[in-house]
Amino acid sequence: MDPAVRHPVLSEAELEEMAPRSQRAAPSTLTRMKKKIRCSGSVAKSLLLKFIPILGWLPRYPVKEWLLGDIVSGLSVGIIQLPQGLAYALLAGVPPVFGLYSSFFPVLLYAIFGTSRHISPGTFAVISVMVGSVTESLVPSENYRLPGNESVIDIAARDNDRVEVASALTFLVGLFQIMLGLVQVGFVVTYLSEPLIRGYTSAAAIHVTVSQMKSVLGVQISQRSHPLSLIYAFVNLCAKVPETNIASLLIGCISITVLFLVKFLNDKYSSKIRMPIPIELITLIVATGISYGASLHQVYGVDIVGEIPTGMKAPMLPNTDIFARVVGNAFAIAVVVYAFTISLAKMFGVKHGYNIDSNQELIALGLSNSIGSFFQCFTIGTAMSRSLVQESTGGHSQVASAVSSLVILIIILKAGELFETLPKAILAAVVVVNLKGIYKQFTDVPMLWRSNKFDLLVWLVTFIATILLNLDIGLAVSVAFSLLTVIFRTQKPHYSILGKVHNTDIYRDVAQFDQVQEIQGVKIFQSSCTLYFANANLYAEAVKKMCGTDVDTLIELKKKAMKKQKQLQEKAEKQMKKENKKREKELDAIVSNSPAAKEPEIQIAADYEVLEEAGLDYLGSEKCNLHSLILDLSTAGFLDTVSIKVLKNIFRDFQEIDVQVYLTGCQVYIIEQLEAGNFFSKSITKNLLFNSVHDAVTYISRTHGQQDTKGSDTCLNTKI
Amino acid sequence: MDPAVRHPVLSEAELEEMAPRSQRAAPSTLTRMKKKIRCSGSVAKSLLLKFIPILGWLPRYPVKEWLLGDIVSGLSVGIIQLPQGLAYALLAGVPPVFGLYSSFFPVLLYAIFGTSRHISPGTFAVISVMVGSVTESLVPSENYRLPGNESVIDIAARDNDRVEVASALTFLVGLFQIMLGLVQVGFVVTYLSEPLIRGYTSAAAIHVTVSQMKSVLGVQISQRSHPLSLIYAFVNLCAKVPETNIASLLIGCISITVLFLVKFLNDKYSSKIRMPIPIELITLIVATGISYGASLHQVYGVDIVGEIPTGMKAPMLPNTDIFARVVGNAFAIAVVVYAFTISLAKMFGVKHGYNIDSNQELIALGLSNSIGSFFQCFTIGTAMSRSLVQESTGGHSQVASAVSSLVILIIILKAGELFETLPKAILAAVVVVNLKGIYKQFTDVPMLWRSNKFDLLVWLVTFIATILLNLDIGLAVSVAFSLLTVIFRTQKPHYSILGKVHNTDIYRDVAQFDQVQEIQGVKIFQSSCTLYFANANLYAEAVKKMCGTDVDTLIELKKKAMKKQKQLQEKAEKQMKKENKKREKELDAIVSNSPAAKEPEIQIAADYEVLEEAGLDYLGSEKCNLHSLILDLSTAGFLDTVSIKVLKNIFRDFQEIDVQVYLTGCQVYIIEQLEAGNFFSKSITKNLLFNSVHDAVTYISRTHGQQDTKGSDTCLNTKI
Repeated sequence: MDPAVRHPVLSEAELEEMAPRSQRAAPSTLTRMKKKIRCSGSVAKSLLLKFIPILGWLPRYPVKEWLLGDIVSGLSVGIIQLPQGLAYALLAGVPPVFGLYSSFFPVLLYAIFGTSRHISPGTFAVISVMVGSVTESLVPSENYRLPGNESVIDIAARDNDRVEVASALTFLVGLFQIMLGLVQVGFVVTYLSEPLIRGYTSAAAIHVTVSQMKSVLGVQISQRSHPLSLIYAFVNLCAKVPETNIASLLIGCISITVLFLVKFLNDKYSSKIRMPIPIELITLIVATGISYGASLHQVYGVDIVGEIPTGMKAPMLPNTDIFARVVGNAFAIAVVVYAFTISLAKMFGVKHGYNIDSNQELIALGLSNSIGSFFQCFTIGTAMSRSLVQESTGGHSQVASAVSSLVILIIILKAGELFETLPKAILAAVVVVNLKGIYKQFTDVPMLWRSNKFDLLVWLVTFIATILLNLDIGLAVSVAFSLLTVIFRTQKPHYSILGKVHNTDIYRDVAQFDQVQEIQGVKIFQSSCTLYFANANLYAEAVKKMCGTDVDTLIELKKKAMKKQKQLQEKAEKQMKKENKKREKELDAIVSNSPAAKEPEIQIAADYEVLEEAGLDYLGSEKCNLHSLILDLSTAGFLDTVSIKVLKNIFRDFQEIDVQVYLTGCQVYIIEQLEAGNFFSKSITKNLLFNSVHDAVTYISRTHGQQDTKGSDTCLNTKI
Repeated sequence: MDPAVRHPVLSEAELEEMAPRSQRAAPSTLTRMKKKIRCSGSVAKSLLLKFIPILGWLPRYPVKEWLLGDIVSGLSVGIIQLPQGLAYALLAGVPPVFGLYSSFFPVLLYAIFGTSRHISPGTFAVISVMVGSVTESLVPSENYRLPGNESVIDIAARDNDRVEVASALTFLVGLFQIMLGLVQVGFVVTYLSEPLIRGYTSAAAIHVTVSQMKSVLGVQISQRSHPLSLIYAFVNLCAKVPETNIASLLIGCISITVLFLVKFLNDKYSSKIRMPIPIELITLIVATGISYGASLHQVYGVDIVGEIPTGMKAPMLPNTDIFARVVGNAFAIAVVVYAFTISLAKMFGVKHGYNIDSNQELIALGLSNSIGSFFQCFTIGTAMSRSLVQESTGGHSQVASAVSSLVILIIILKAGELFETLPKAILAAVVVVNLKGIYKQFTDVPMLWRSNKFDLLVWLVTFIATILLNLDIGLAVSVAFSLLTVIFRTQKPHYSILGKVHNTDIYRDVAQFDQVQEIQGVKIFQSSCTLYFANANLYAEAVKKMCGTDVDTLIELKKKAMKKQKQLQEKAEKQMKKENKKREKELDAIVSNSPAAKEPEIQIAADYEVLEEAGLDYLGSEKCNLHSLILDLSTAGFLDTVSIKVLKNIFRDFQEIDVQVYLTGCQVYIIEQLEAGNFFSKSITKNLLFNSVHDAVTYISRTHGQQDTKGSDTCLNTKI
């Protein structure tokens, strides 16, 4: 069996990647393959195959098995791309035809460069509204009031400028994606954790809905993107409710109901029908027909799509003057587009068993967007709903995307103008109904409440920040917050004192388990998290507190006692000298009178007794409770200078009160970091490091064996 | 022995805190004490003692032992406070006399409310320059040009406004500190890790030096705080070098040299002299004398301190209009002041064996600043150099601070005007020389390079950000960056495959140790860090990669094989049916002819063989290398939904290729989080959890015992 037939759409690069393992199964054929690649193509060819995957899979495309499915799927997707393209263009703040362009060029480019076979690239609500917030804030309608009549806006000039902004933005988005792909830092997307993405898209859906409500109500409100603009827009909208165009509202409500119902039936009977009913296309056609026939625009003042130029526009370089003002948004959009695409691509990859090259995905998206921007496309992403249609209608490969883009091409070239009388309310309905999947994400809240409160917090903060601060600043705040949660989660760890499970070498939290017993004279301390600057001081406090020994007071008492001892010693020495002198004098006078001379010595002894009672004895009676402290560092992933300093201080403080400290469970890297941080010294030797808690306990019980039994006796006495 | 004598300066609250332990040593006296407190004072009194520590320690002040030391120390510190107060006032952008006020009121207040006995509160270079950046940016000199003569600035009006800004800022700083103290969130300071603080102060020292160079050179430059303003100021300064006032420069250079030398000698012979030579005071007096005698201001144009009003000013409410504009800076300054104070206080506390109440420290600083602000003080902090003087000259308690503030009071009331002819260059020299300790921090760079690269990065980023973006934005950027390093450090952990140390139950990284052997058929995987959203996907990739098994390809092959198998089965069934029909026909024709009917079955068998070769056999030969995967989660401190999902996927993928996955070393909290996250299911049961790696290995070797020996035989064959 020839491997090329066995893996019809695996690129040669992929085959080569597989080779080391595959060799065992079928060494002869694969070795031949590899040799062939090496001989004929060399490095250049394999790079070419890596960067242009279509060269790898198209020659081996199994026409007989896949082509029909791809065509059916491509047609279905193309039919969805049309209304979505028109609708999302309005979200992006540009005339509808640019949505069609965006559903053609980038989609075709992705088919050439992409590695996912099932996702459907193209216009996407969340990304479109992000683009829209940039175009609307940089090119606000207010700036285009006609000089003579202030209430009329020069829509043509405004839209022209908006298209310019959108394509410049899209070019930058593409550029960022290519750069990220080339330097292989696709991992930035890991900062966008799932709760964040879901909270973000939920907020985006609210933004989209509010922005579409004006089309459904048939009113005009000026919308500018700034913090709290969503709230202002909503208030403005409510104020304009009395001006509602009833015809628009009716069209909107009816079409939303129809779309929703039919989509529901499509989902329900998806297993029974080969292809979902193209209800969006049907609605579009019917509505356009009615609108044209009943002259809805002229008679009822219903807002319609308006002029859709037929044919292509000549490519144009993006306006570089705009770059500086959109660079931040471009980066955010680039990352968000990638995050959606890669998660969908990986999902399908896992389902159908093929690998996704995440860096190549970035490059594919980048090329789609940056080349697309020359043709005035706005930024594309990947819509989950459309991708599911592509997969479920039998799409096997990127050919389906290519077919769908051809459908759009035909419409651009021939049928665009037919949709000129389409009411905008229909497009709004298409947008709103397509958000159904995102609205469902609100059920995340109770789910996360049960499963993970921190992730719920991330979800909620992302949602609220994005609602209040808009999609750009909201995203930045959300990412910052979700990174901060890592600090929160590690800053106040669970601290536990471990005890031994009877007759085993297992040590567990004494507070959690009943059958666990602490070892006499030994405290075993564990933190649930790694030790670093934000929790190091808390760690030290917790150690001291949980040891049940007021270490600081003990040290204080000891220092005082030492001082007192020194003073007493000095005093005694002085007195001795005095006495000696006196005695010498006495000796001079009387030759022998010893009993009197003993008096001062008794005095000193009494002083020492007072001292013992005051401090040293206190120390002694405490000490018998604790002679060893084991710090289990098995949860430590890294150490910084602050944590090393804190550990040093713990060693110093406990050694001061004659408690020996041991470290256990240090990973190799931790020991290296301890060494680099000058942790080890005369008083902290490497002999205090043990592999496991049990090793340390064994060592301690061996060395303290005798003292221990003695100690516990006195303990019982003093404890009463 | 009476406890009151034993702990002369412990507050009763402290005593009570100690009580539970102390009881054992001297139960009778302490129980009596506690009863006394409870009877007479109740909660109100103990709260009073907590919030006004002086009520606790002053009645028990050991006059005979401590008073002399405290007076000597207080005089020494007061003598230093004078020049520093005058000099740092210039840093804060206000006339020198306000530095004297700031060295009096807040210092006295701290003596009443503070719990540290050895720190010297008062003006501090870093804080003063932070205040200065606010006053200079809100009240720039440019706004005070006289209407007639543009080159002359109305200094009196400007300084008046600056004082207003400084005291409003200081009031807010105090308010923030009190609030932080009352809600007990002093822990915010843990975000200011040591490398950050040191990098920050080093940058602040550069800011201070540049701002003082204009006084030394005797030139005027307008300085406004904004990003990159330090660079502009330096460039402006260089441009003005030709205008240098030679007399000023000479005074500055000579005094810097003298101060530096004498301070060096003071340090060197600190053990031999009871009190350091008050060289700053001497320089001040000598310089003032010379300046007055030689009329330096009038003859050589040397810039002098100017009018110092005698006596106090009436207290004034801070201007609330300014609050909104300084609130961000106030918070930053509040935290920085606290960070310096608490670290010094804890250092002395450890050295002398007493406890610091960090929340009370915040309240003490807050009261000092907020009440001080009514008297036009600017924000105070704690200078390390001065505190060391206070301690080394025999200071035992807050009485030293009180004495030092009285020294300043006398100067304010009587001697202030004597310093009116003091050249500003002298004050600049005092500032610069006092930064010596901070300059030494540059040696951190090589030290950190050796010990911890990440901490070095924090140091450098903090330093550069603070230099370029100034002290306010620089601090925010630095804190954000230092928190990000936690992400960096945990995002790319070390992954290791563990093996067993011969004849022990210890498992160690096979790549690090020679005598460690992997267990046949079992991979034990460990990550050095906790598993969370930013590294979860990398973890999954690393597991798959380090297992030496191309899991994705195996799954792909398996799915293909299954599909093929299904197709073949269908084909076979069809053929069977066909054959059956044929046979039936044949049966109709000829009654018995069985051998011919067997042919198709042989065909199917052959197909299966091809299939086995292609995929299933491949799977089989891989499988014998690996039947179990152990994920050691002992380093996990918490799990989030992303990491639980990733773990689930690992289970699913490996179970797909018949590798059983086990989890070991999960802490109790981790298991709870797994449960909450719906991790366990039919295929992932709690039976797959083990206490330790060894337990899991024991279990696996028991269940796989027989298969294992069989497996390894075939393995040897296929491996060649």
